[in-house]
Amino acid sequence: MKGGMAAPRTIALDAMGGDRGPAVVLAGADLALRRHADVSFLLFGDQSRVSVHLAAHPLLAERARAVHADTVVEMQDKPSQAVRRGRKSSMWLAIEAVQKGEADFVVSAGNTGALMAMAKLILTTMPGIERPAIAAQWPTLAGPCIVLDLGANIGATARQLADFALMGAAMARAVFHIERPRVGLLNIGVEEIKGIEEVRQAHAWLKDNGELAIDYRGFVEGDQIGQGVADVLVVEGFAGNIALKTAEGTAKQMAAWMREAMTSSPWSRLGALFAQRGLRTLKARMDTRQFNGGPFLGLNGIAIKSHGGTDAVGFAHAIEVGYQMAESNVLGRLAADLEALHGKLTEPEAAGRSS
Amino acid sequence: MKGGMAAPRTIALDAMGGDRGPAVVLAGADLALRRHADVSFLLFGDQSRVSVHLAAHPLLAERARAVHADTVVEMQDKPSQAVRRGRKSSMWLAIEAVQKGEADFVVSAGNTGALMAMAKLILTTMPGIERPAIAAQWPTLAGPCIVLDLGANIGATARQLADFALMGAAMARAVFHIERPRVGLLNIGVEEIKGIEEVRQAHAWLKDNGELAIDYRGFVEGDQIGQGVADVLVVEGFAGNIALKTAEGTAKQMAAWMREAMTSSPWSRLGALFAQRGLRTLKARMDTRQFNGGPFLGLNGIAIKSHGGTDAVGFAHAIEVGYQMAESNVLGRLAADLEALHGKLTEPEAAGRSS
Repeated sequence: MKGGMAAPRTIALDAMGGDRGPAVVLAGADLALRRHADVSFLLFGDQSRVSVHLAAHPLLAERARAVHADTVVEMQDKPSQAVRRGRKSSMWLAIEAVQKGEADFVVSAGNTGALMAMAKLILTTMPGIERPAIAAQWPTLAGPCIVLDLGANIGATARQLADFALMGAAMARAVFHIERPRVGLLNIGVEEIKGIEEVRQAHAWLKDNGELAIDYRGFVEGDQIGQGVADVLVVEGFAGNIALKTAEGTAKQMAAWMREAMTSSPWSRLGALFAQRGLRTLKARMDTRQFNGGPFLGLNGIAIKSHGGTDAVGFAHAIEVGYQMAESNVLGRLAADLEALHGKLTEPEAAGRSS
Repeated sequence: MKGGMAAPRTIALDAMGGDRGPAVVLAGADLALRRHADVSFLLFGDQSRVSVHLAAHPLLAERARAVHADTVVEMQDKPSQAVRRGRKSSMWLAIEAVQKGEADFVVSAGNTGALMAMAKLILTTMPGIERPAIAAQWPTLAGPCIVLDLGANIGATARQLADFALMGAAMARAVFHIERPRVGLLNIGVEEIKGIEEVRQAHAWLKDNGELAIDYRGFVEGDQIGQGVADVLVVEGFAGNIALKTAEGTAKQMAAWMREAMTSSPWSRLGALFAQRGLRTLKARMDTRQFNGGPFLGLNGIAIKSHGGTDAVGFAHAIEVGYQMAESNVLGRLAADLEALHGKLTEPEAAGRSS
């Protein structure tokens, strides 16, 4: 990572990623530019297609450079295929710009598995980190929290879970500006006797480690996430992915029932008219675009995954997440935290079980 | 299991289970009796306390026999403790009534872990079943579906997942009256390349097995559950428990936001008045009592776990789940299904990976 606190940021974008490619990516970049007028963009993709959309955004055109990429990673490509054959792809070149120090971070709305595999290969993992994780913001009654891992990997050792806790805390510091984020471990019971051995071991390490810059809150159950009991929630990728998607599905289901309740009769529709202000607030709260942008944590560089189906507003938010992380020097501080944790892992391990 | 299709049912109840013990259990039994006038009850618990509440339900008193139990399993008891020390508890005796053929099924709102441990010990697992599972009904846009395992165990082998599929299908037949239930495997991607090895192996077995009385629908992601894409969804217990609780938490969070939307101003409150009919329907749909009652599947006997915090309406629904399962001869049919599956497990296992 290059650039001090005050330096203008350069942002690498995979212009071909996502369901609508350059149309959404460039419109998103244009929105981001209205917020941060001094950033500049490197737009990796099919030059002819990128140029067409760039012409529609004169402000962006002044602050962006299009870099041609011969190929595109498709959504159905396997990560291993993409890594072998995709070295001239827009995704690869955009990540490589971060590795070369030409950009401060990269955003792609493309194939998640391919993006992770490439980012891991090009940026490499931080010292002591075995596995990167995908994090995301999750709306709660008390504002957004961060949940990780969301499926970068299946299963996690106790050490990986503890690493995830620090990686998530680093992101919370960057995007929520909280010095000592509240961190919880997702588990299937609040009693210490319950849950997976790995989760219990990670719990033992985290709770006995006052040197870490986190406010460790212990086990959290699935039904507490929405209450906002923590700023960061840690879980292995299989259960994390299922939990996030289940929450999304439940929110959609509830929204469908709510819509039906407010349109099922002329009286209901009249009621919706009177309540329109409250209903608008509700709709705004459920707008998933404001939570778009999941960083890959644990790499020597900042890579952000945008939802493939988002629009310009959502893509701009993914850029904002990267921007905040770059501004906060997240990687430097995380490295120090990880060193503090790893240096102590042996000692509390033996004592952990009896607690 | 005893009793033919037409025989009146005898139901064993752990009268001391749940947050409010006999008050809710007996009121629930009274409600169940209004639906099935010919059933009778065995009420296990502290005789003096049970008698007090029984006096308030004269109809129930005629159809119930109180059986004294010296002790009670507490919510904080560890399963291993409960099994060792709880052999005179209301929970133990109620389960034992099923094992002895004195009752057709048992319902308890007590300590889940203790109930599972005791049920497994007393009723024993069905032939070929390594692990019982806890199932529950999950509301979707297309009516309820069944999800299992919800935390009876953490992790599951491919064979256990395949068993869960048949166990869930048996429950769907009993409570939804669907001959060939649609069954899905919860996974973190719909592509066959994704997910845990065990899930992929179970997928390979289930999809190539036309003899099973299920309509196998393949992988399902968390966000599809609420759409009602399957009657039965199978997942290992850690992720399943987190998914269920996450959905509950998200529903509560949405409900809080909706309430706020409809009460945030005088205009909103007026709107809520006009829309009250639609909002009542919404509230009824979200009423979790109608989904209460999670059977332990894979045992030689029917044991139903009721939510500890439910009321009489919810407890009566848990009794209804047991009643439907007893009526449908669920165990006999499940045994045949399991035999058909286990007889074929070796052959498709080798071919599974390549599919």
